[in-house]
Amino acid sequence: MSSHHIVRDDQEPALIIANGESCNRELLDQLLEWSPLVVVLDSAIERVIELGIKIDVLIGDFDRDFDFEKYKDLQFPIEIVKVEDQNSTDLDKAYNYLIERNIPAANVVWATGRRADHTITNLTNVIKFKDKLKIVLLDDYSKVFLLPKSFKKWYPKNTPISLIPLGIVNGITTNNLAYSLKNESLEIGFRSGSSNHVSEDGIVEITYTKGFLLMMECFD
Amino acid sequence: MSSHHIVRDDQEPALIIANGESCNRELLDQLLEWSPLVVVLDSAIERVIELGIKIDVLIGDFDRDFDFEKYKDLQFPIEIVKVEDQNSTDLDKAYNYLIERNIPAANVVWATGRRADHTITNLTNVIKFKDKLKIVLLDDYSKVFLLPKSFKKWYPKNTPISLIPLGIVNGITTNNLAYSLKNESLEIGFRSGSSNHVSEDGIVEITYTKGFLLMMECFD
Repeated sequence: MSSHHIVRDDQEPALIIANGESCNRELLDQLLEWSPLVVVLDSAIERVIELGIKIDVLIGDFDRDFDFEKYKDLQFPIEIVKVEDQNSTDLDKAYNYLIERNIPAANVVWATGRRADHTITNLTNVIKFKDKLKIVLLDDYSKVFLLPKSFKKWYPKNTPISLIPLGIVNGITTNNLAYSLKNESLEIGFRSGSSNHVSEDGIVEITYTKGFLLMMECFD
Repeated sequence: MSSHHIVRDDQEPALIIANGESCNRELLDQLLEWSPLVVVLDSAIERVIELGIKIDVLIGDFDRDFDFEKYKDLQFPIEIVKVEDQNSTDLDKAYNYLIERNIPAANVVWATGRRADHTITNLTNVIKFKDKLKIVLLDDYSKVFLLPKSFKKWYPKNTPISLIPLGIVNGITTNNLAYSLKNESLEIGFRSGSSNHVSEDGIVEITYTKGFLLMMECFD
């Protein structure tokens, strides 16, 4: 059975296409292949349609002029979800939609690049959903997720890794990173753990006691 | 006297070209016209040379193979500043260089886009230099700077404005923004002031009592 015929259910991560910089097509196709559900933010719809992608859910506040019927026909069947809430971003609305459907995880593309306010908001808003949805943001240069308080993963030597504190993060200890931390603190704007890398092929361990620490696996 | 013949001194902002996404040429040319000093991070040198820009200072740790002599000839006269410090980014090194020269302000381009770890570090590291250097980051979508505790500026109606808290920011009050704040708090990852806009042509006032608040004037 090829991977194209794999049985898909809601236990696999949904794919959310946000409205920042487009990623390369190869990354998008890889994610589409493994995503049972494709959710697109309303402001990205035109760019997604141009790529010939089948959309399952279109979500947003639709605050621009919006021709619902056009997309209902073009993308039949499609669920169109209108959420009016000035206190949440469209990406937040997509996360909440998935949580309501009991989908446990989301990969998110096009969440970075272009407007810097959207980028920093999208990178940091993952905290709000930490107990309800496993979120991974991906672009052409980075894979980003919130670290659990205790993390272990195998990496090849020299993999670039950045640890970005969202606020103040205490009690950070690392093992197998070039610039190691021993029960130390990082603070956004003052001391970040950006531009580190893996020392040797093997398990990287990161633990911390307080705060929220973003992991960014990066590449140029 | 045309603006090309204006007398320039070190009171005007220097221009730093970092290593993120390139901006559009029009923005770059505007900034070059008003910048007495052009500082380029080592990792951006090839892309800057291709644009035919005269560089005054090339700075970084030069941790890749690097042919100094080539640039000394190509860009004569040029100052090449090698700083080895694993605890500072190359952009930090450029800020420190300007501070040592008593230059009071810097415009920074190419500091966002591409690697998300560099973007978030560059957007937030401005705090560290707040008492020594007036820093403005610019790209094709955003103009970003750290707000003083009391800020007033005239904006046209509907200008998109985002207020991004770096950590927790308390006692924020705004006047003439669509979603107004009255002695409220914002916290990175939990409650941001992203995607606000100016209510009416006129003065926008923002005050806050504690923390660090980034202003982002944005456009799509």
